[in-house]
This record gives sequence, structure tokens and C-alpha cells, in this order.
Amino acid sequence: MVNFGAPADQYVVGVDYGTLSGRAVVVRLRDGAEVGTAVHVYRRGVIETSLPETGAPLDPDWALQDPQDYRDVLAHAVPDAVRESGVDPLKIIGIATDFTACTVLPTLADGTPLCEVPELRARPHAWVKLWKHHAAQPHADRINALAHQRAESWIGRYGGKISAEWQFAKGLQLLEEDPETYQRAQRFIEAADWIVWELCGAETRNICTAGYKGIHQDGRYPSKEFLAALHPGFVDFVTKLDGPLSPMGQRAGGLTARAAGWTGLPEGIAVAVGNVDAHVTAAAAKALEPGRLVAIMGTSTCHVLNGADLVEVPGMCGVVDGGISPGAWGFEAGQSGVGDIFGWFVEQSAPAGVASHTQLSQLAAVQQVGAHGLIALDWWNGNRSLLVNHDLSGLIIGLTLATRPEDVYRALLESTAYGTRMIIEAFEAAGVPVNEIVVAGGLAANDLLMRIYADVTNRPLSIIGSAQGPALGSAIHAAVAAGAYPDVYAAAAVMGRVDRDVYRPDPDRVSSYDALYAEYRSLHDHFGRGGDDVMSRLRAIRNAAGRANLNATPPSTADRSVPPSST
Amino acid sequence: MVNFGAPADQYVVGVDYGTLSGRAVVVRLRDGAEVGTAVHVYRRGVIETSLPETGAPLDPDWALQDPQDYRDVLAHAVPDAVRESGVDPLKIIGIATDFTACTVLPTLADGTPLCEVPELRARPHAWVKLWKHHAAQPHADRINALAHQRAESWIGRYGGKISAEWQFAKGLQLLEEDPETYQRAQRFIEAADWIVWELCGAETRNICTAGYKGIHQDGRYPSKEFLAALHPGFVDFVTKLDGPLSPMGQRAGGLTARAAGWTGLPEGIAVAVGNVDAHVTAAAAKALEPGRLVAIMGTSTCHVLNGADLVEVPGMCGVVDGGISPGAWGFEAGQSGVGDIFGWFVEQSAPAGVASHTQLSQLAAVQQVGAHGLIALDWWNGNRSLLVNHDLSGLIIGLTLATRPEDVYRALLESTAYGTRMIIEAFEAAGVPVNEIVVAGGLAANDLLMRIYADVTNRPLSIIGSAQGPALGSAIHAAVAAGAYPDVYAAAAVMGRVDRDVYRPDPDRVSSYDALYAEYRSLHDHFGRGGDDVMSRLRAIRNAAGRANLNATPPSTADRSVPPSST
Repeated sequence: MVNFGAPADQYVVGVDYGTLSGRAVVVRLRDGAEVGTAVHVYRRGVIETSLPETGAPLDPDWALQDPQDYRDVLAHAVPDAVRESGVDPLKIIGIATDFTACTVLPTLADGTPLCEVPELRARPHAWVKLWKHHAAQPHADRINALAHQRAESWIGRYGGKISAEWQFAKGLQLLEEDPETYQRAQRFIEAADWIVWELCGAETRNICTAGYKGIHQDGRYPSKEFLAALHPGFVDFVTKLDGPLSPMGQRAGGLTARAAGWTGLPEGIAVAVGNVDAHVTAAAAKALEPGRLVAIMGTSTCHVLNGADLVEVPGMCGVVDGGISPGAWGFEAGQSGVGDIFGWFVEQSAPAGVASHTQLSQLAAVQQVGAHGLIALDWWNGNRSLLVNHDLSGLIIGLTLATRPEDVYRALLESTAYGTRMIIEAFEAAGVPVNEIVVAGGLAANDLLMRIYADVTNRPLSIIGSAQGPALGSAIHAAVAAGAYPDVYAAAAVMGRVDRDVYRPDPDRVSSYDALYAEYRSLHDHFGRGGDDVMSRLRAIRNAAGRANLNATPPSTADRSVPPSST
Repeated sequence: MVNFGAPADQYVVGVDYGTLSGRAVVVRLRDGAEVGTAVHVYRRGVIETSLPETGAPLDPDWALQDPQDYRDVLAHAVPDAVRESGVDPLKIIGIATDFTACTVLPTLADGTPLCEVPELRARPHAWVKLWKHHAAQPHADRINALAHQRAESWIGRYGGKISAEWQFAKGLQLLEEDPETYQRAQRFIEAADWIVWELCGAETRNICTAGYKGIHQDGRYPSKEFLAALHPGFVDFVTKLDGPLSPMGQRAGGLTARAAGWTGLPEGIAVAVGNVDAHVTAAAAKALEPGRLVAIMGTSTCHVLNGADLVEVPGMCGVVDGGISPGAWGFEAGQSGVGDIFGWFVEQSAPAGVASHTQLSQLAAVQQVGAHGLIALDWWNGNRSLLVNHDLSGLIIGLTLATRPEDVYRALLESTAYGTRMIIEAFEAAGVPVNEIVVAGGLAANDLLMRIYADVTNRPLSIIGSAQGPALGSAIHAAVAAGAYPDVYAAAAVMGRVDRDVYRPDPDRVSSYDALYAEYRSLHDHFGRGGDDVMSRLRAIRNAAGRANLNATPPSTADRSVPPSST
């Protein structure tokens, strides 16, 4: 990987913040060559059961993070990547970041995270709420009901439902469950913008997260009347968010001396405004043209797609003017659980002899379509698009005594492909064409999965030509922020990379999958669209029983009312 | 176990033929003490994929056995049990057997199994069809449709549907798929009666299997007109079955010299007529009184229950006059998969760290009711009661990334308890009271499972006081056949044993389970009673794809249409 470069070469750094780790990549401006990379695994990772240090317990569906993990990426992954590249840091002219979203935290006015304020450290609500924190579903439900009741113009931009993952649901949960911490939060900010604040010392807000996660549409946030109707104390929520919005690729400021110290990069170089891992990948995959759906497939899948016109698509995450790149309407959709589901299966449901993705994929790959007799609904982590409901859960149907682990594994792979097809069909039904799928993310390496996606969706699959698409996408934005290219389109054309049509659908398998997809869609609509709300009821029973667990002594395992005696 | 007995003591032998092995027990007449026991594991066991010796392949859903396995039980388990008991064989005055059912075979007129006729040995249809051979579902469907169309009086006795497991469905499959073997079959006989033929040298037929598995009602089998309407060649089918029927506990004949040679028992001692493992257990569990539901819980569960009056219960396996004991109407119901499902989970779906029933039960036992958030439909092996449909399959709903193996395991235990409750409620709705559940079979040892059954059904659970209930039940019938007791009731009162009310329902858990059971019932009716026939469709797709598998080269695992190239 060491590359000494031509004397005149300049470089940029892209940093991709994922769920479990952060990755830095050093990229050459003139051709997008990735000349050095390094990963830093978060020390705290995902905080799900109890807080660090104080051990304060967390309810089910909570998912927090520690902002210090994010700083540590700057202090470790960036200098490691530069060192690996062999590039002279003085040749690096800009840095940009991308983040999971909506990952959001409350801070003081100077950007200090509330969880770093000593007297708030034991309060769960003071920490970063990770994108997959799903405990604000009741709050999202109320926001959606009220938005429809008041016929708010913005609700259609989000497919008719905002997600429990987003800023307003998480903010309302904060207010109602911990009003004191809510009052202390002078700012409520996406981690995407917070890390830029750490880099350049100035608070900025980007169009992308404000639009997709913050309900900023047509130049404004939801009204005070709307917020007051949700809860009187929520009326001021927008004051914790508000500020000028910056388009994607804009310079947020110069690298501070403090951040230069962490990263080893020159003080004062361009820092780009915050961005989101999925959206930034479209540039890396040369997929900014309308009709190219980028699927960033990892633990979850995000779909981003540019369109020429504003269209409201039922069940989509959102449409934002300039949300992916300036001058286009950016559409976002998502599947809350994809690789997470496959990982769950390998860890929690595969016997010792076949407990690896490689073994299961090999066994599953030789099957004829439909031979396992199974359909799964891929809702282990809820459903983001089209149903926007995190109380939904996973289902497997068709199990028999002859069902083998590779059968279930394949059915799970297929279930996520069916979920993608539901999204594609919703786009097309609304008049947004999807001609090609461009896959990025770690799951692109699973040949069986890619083949299934091509056959289920009946579309060619292109594969991004980089193993670190978001970081490359960030580097492209860093190049624009540093003035090396006039805009993201020009930078992406030179620095992005993609392998076109790597997988093409097979007509026989396409036809076989049509029958199975019809069953998936029928089950999807039955359990997701009101035919039977059993999943929500089971979730409520589970949560009530889980709480009882904390307060009750478990029943004794031997519960014989009378001693047995033969008669 | 060695017991020398009083000089005047006499003994009987009971032999229980299970799915994988046969067990013999030596029992003392005066008190039912089990003084010796031995098990013989079948050499061939369940034949599911290809025939022994010739390797002829079997289609999905087939399950055969080798009759030589049954003789070997007489030649090994019986003398082993006698040896272990220390009893002088001359003190043994009778032998009785019980069998799985409907396990049925075609024979020559002298009882020779067709699979032992050399030129027929490579034909799958010449072998014993085990109870869980489920490939005759299309034939059962036609029998049921025609019975309702013709308003046959007997169909109501079987809850409105006869099972694909039974004699007429298996016989029709034999005729249509292998007419030559059908023609060679001079007799078509339950293994329960065939083994008695082997013991006493004379063919007998018992009321129990003729009634429950052979559609013998009100003194006759289905009419020639009915059979001809199914298939012209089927008109003579009853001639392969017909003959005098013997009540339970009757003497079939005396032990032949040949069988005395196998068993080491005295020639000429009483051999009782054939019986069924489930039905014979009611006597062993002292549960011949109306209202006592005996659940024999092993790989599957059979339920038997005496009632004072003839009532037709929708979805039940059958009601037969004297089917369990003379003078009562015997009801039978069943669940096709119970322990088999738990075993499937441990083998196919549990990661290495928790892959045992003990570990999973320990982890599951401390949970509050409903805390796992799951419901399963217990149809891994189809559904015998109430739906009588072996194209149904298993379902799990409520899965999340937080679902752990013990959660699914507990949900599977519970699903079978819900299935039992469906059966109990159907009995009670038809006016047949169920006041108490008497559990027999290996699963009675699972404390968690028993507690769940008591709480789900809201009924006290009694546990049979013998680890080998069917064999003890057979011994009781041997005692009656030998004339040691006037009837089965008198013998059972002395020789049977039960621990009453070992598990009593807990009111809080009963209430929690009511809510979950309501969800089970709703899913049961949706997928089992016409709301969505997706399970049948998936089965058809699976079977078609499976056949394609045999004829087609599997798709290559690397299926890239064009070599990848960066653009």
C-alpha cells in the first residue's frame, strides 16, 4: 500500500465513522488512489445494557455510544493511515468525515457532550443515542399521528412517517424521560456535525442530516405550534438545533491546533461539513446520476438515489433538496437489519459444525431457488422502509424437521433481498426510476448474496471499486472543501470507482423468485400493514415481562406443589 | 432391579415398539412391579432417504421401517429383560405388545412382509410405512373430499378428516404409485397385528387400530362404492384388511415354538391381541376413567381419553367404541411433532455453547412468561389435531437481534403446550370434559416443560409412575389375556401407577399465558384454517425445487457474467 507519489501529488483524508469502529483513508487527489488506511475499533462500542463506569442499567431497545470513541479515531486511525501511506502530512490539504445517522447527542453551548459533564455521567439520556437506539418508538408514533392530524406539509417528504431513530423522536424521549438533562442540553446535534465541531472548533450544520433526520424542509423546521402540541416543554426544541445549513462538500473551517495535534495533519487545512456514511458513498461509487440506487450493505442497508424531481414516495426515509449532492433531490431508504441478521444467525442459531458465513454460504449456494421451503420477514431490527416501524420483528415460516441451518441462512439472505425489492418497487410506483443497483459495503464480498439480489430484483448489480466506500466518499468531499475540484460531481468523476454489471440476473431464477417474493409481500403486508398487529403486541408483552424481571424473583425451577408420591 | 419374588409370584412381559427401538419389561402380576427391563435399538431405524441394500432413493416425506427390526426386539430385548429380572421364565404366563400406529405393511397371505420377497425388495412400497410417512397427503386429501361429497357417515368420527398417516391413505398411495406391489399384497396389516401374528402364528386384528387407523365404524369398513370412486383398482382394498376384530386384552393365541425360541419364554403362554403405544398407556397410568386425558409425550404426543358417550369432535383423530378399553368410547388426538421439534432445535439451531436440553432448559426456566417476545406454531412435522394437515410447517414470530437460543427453545416448548390446549378446548367445546392431564413418556422428566403445560392449560398435571408406561400397559393387557384379572380395569387398578397433581397451575402465569395463547390461536387459525395457505404453497415450491435438484446441475457458486473491471 505504500505509495511515494509524484512530487506534485496532493492528498486528502476521509474518515468514516461506523457503528463499531472508525476508518481513515488517505486518498490521492489526482486519481482517487487509496494510498493508506487504518481502522480504530471503539473502546466502548455500542452501549446496550448498562452505562460504563456507573453501571446504570438500560431498558430494552436502548443503544448508546461514548463520544470519546470518536475522538480516539482521530487520534489513532488518522495518523496510522498517514503513516501507512508514507505520504508527507504537509501534502494533505483537507479532511472530511462521514457518520452513522441519526446518531445524536446533547451538548453544552461549547460542544461539550453532556455525558462528559460529571454530574450527568450516570444519566443514560446524557450519552450519544446511536442510530439503532429504538426506544423512542412511542414518541415517533405520537409525532406521526399529530403530523397527520395537523396535515403538516413535511410529513409526506418522509413517506408519511418519521422514524423512531430520528432527532425529534429521540429529543422528545429525552425531554419526557429526563427533563433535567433536556434543560441542560443547549445544543442537540448529530454526531456528524459534532465531530466537525471537534475538528474545526466551530459549530456547523449540514443540509443532509438536517433534512433527512431533522425534519428541515422548505427552509424550516417543524413549527412551535406543532412542538407545543406534542409537549409544552418541547416548544423550544428547534432552538437546540437551529443555525445556518451548509451544502455537501462545503468547507466548515480550518483544522484547529488541538485537532492537528490529534491527527498529525497540518493546522488550518480544510475541514468539510459533516456528512452521512450512506450519502457520501454515492460519490465514491460514481452513482450521482438519477436511476442509480446505491445500496450500502453492512449491519444495516442504506439506499440513496438521486432524482431530478421532487416526488413524495410512501414509506421512504426522506427526500431532501441537495441531500446527496447539490442540485438534485436526494432520496433515502433503508433496511434496519441486514448483515446484523446474518451475524445473529451465525452466533445465536447455527450449530458448531457450520457456524461461519463461509460454511453456510457454501452449503446454501448449491440449492435450487425455493428448495428450502422457507420465507422470512427480515425485521429482526424492525423495519425502516417501507413500514417505518421498529416494533416489527422477524418471522420464519416453513420450518420442518428437515430444515437445516444453511436453509435458514439462505432464507435470511433472501428476505433482505425481498425487502430491497419492496423499496425499489415503491420508488418506481412513485415515478422514480431505479435502473441499476450499485452495491457498497462489506456484504458486497458475499457472492451468493449478490447473486440473490440480482435475481430477486431482476436488475444488474454494480459493485463499488473500493473496500472503503464511505471513507473514499468523504475524501472526495474533502477535496471539494479544499478547492481541488469545483464540485462533488467533478471530484467523483475522477476519484470515484465502480465495477459495472458484475452480477446479471438469471431469467430462470428471476422467475422462481417472483413466486417467492409474492409470498413475502403478502406476509409483509399482513404483519406490517394492519392485517395482524401481533408483532407489536408481542413486543409490548415482552417489554412488560422484561420490566417484571427486574423487580421479581424468578420462579423456582422446581415448582412442584406437592411432593410426588406413587398411588 | 434383580428381584427374586415370592415363590408363588407370577409375571407377564410387555413389549413396547417405538420409532427407534423396542423395549421389553417383566412385570409382577400381583402389584405391577417392574422387575426387569431391556431395550433393543433397531438396526435400520427410520429409513428416510434410500432403501437398505439396494439404495433405491426415497422422495421427501417418506419414512419406512424394516420388519426384521421388530423380530430382533423379541430375540434380544425380551430375553435380556428376563435375564435382568432374575425371574424363572416358567413363571411368565403371558406376553403383550404395543406399537406405533398407523405403522402398516403389505404381506403375503402367510404374513411374509413383501419387502422380504426377493423380487420386491428394491421397491419402496414393499416396506413398512412408518406412522410418520407423510407422502400420502394428496391421497388423504382426496379421501376426505370424497367422504364429504358423499356424506359418508364415518367421516365425522374422525373429526371431519382422516390423516395422511392412516391405512387408507397409505394403501391408496401404494396402489397408485406401485400397482404391482399392491396386487401382490394379499394382506395389508398394522405392524401392531403383524407382530402378534409372528408371536402366535395366527392373524388377528384388534379393535383399536381397525377403528382409529382403519376407518372401521359401526361394524364395517368404507363401502366398495366409496373405494371404487377413489380409484377403480381400490375396490378390493378392504379384502386385504378384513377379518374378525378382537377387543383389547383378549387372548390372540398361544406363543409358538418359533417365538418361544426367540424370546426364551414358555411355548403356549398367552399372547394378547395387538395394541397401540398411546392407548395401552391409559391403563398403565390408571387413567381409564372419563375426564382423564393421557398425553404420551415423546417425539410426538398422542392423547387418549375415555368418554361415556359417543361425541364427534371436529379435528380429533377419532372416536372408537372400546378403542381404549371395553365399554367406553375412546377418543384419540395427537400432535405430530413435540420432542422431535425440541431435538431439531438442539441439533440444528443451537450454537455450541448451549447445545443441550439441560442447558437450554436451565436458561429458559428463569424467564418471566412472555419475556422472550416470541410465538411459534408447532408444525415442524405438520399438524395432526386439530387441522389434520401435514403440509403445514413451523413458524416463529417475534425474532429480534436480542433473541437468544433459550428464548426460541422456550417458545418451542410453549408452542406444543398451546397445541395441547387447542385440543383440550375442542374436546370441551364438544361436551367431552377434560379435568386432568396425565403425562406419560420421556418428556415428563422435563420439569420446565411440565410447568409450562400446567400453566398454559390451567389444569393439574399428574405423572405416570413408570418410566416405561406403554410396556407396563402391555403387561397389564398380557395379564388380562392370561386370565389373571377379569378385565383391563381390574388389572390397571392393581398394576398401574400414577403420581397425582404433581404440577399445579400458577394463577399469575396462567393469566399471562392466556394473552399469548390468544396470539397462538389467531396465528393457528390464519395459517391453518384458510386465512393464508402460504405453508402449502411453500411446500409445493419446495418439493418441485427439490425434484429439480435431482435432475439439474447446481448453479455455479461464482456466477459472474462478466469479469469485474474497474472503470
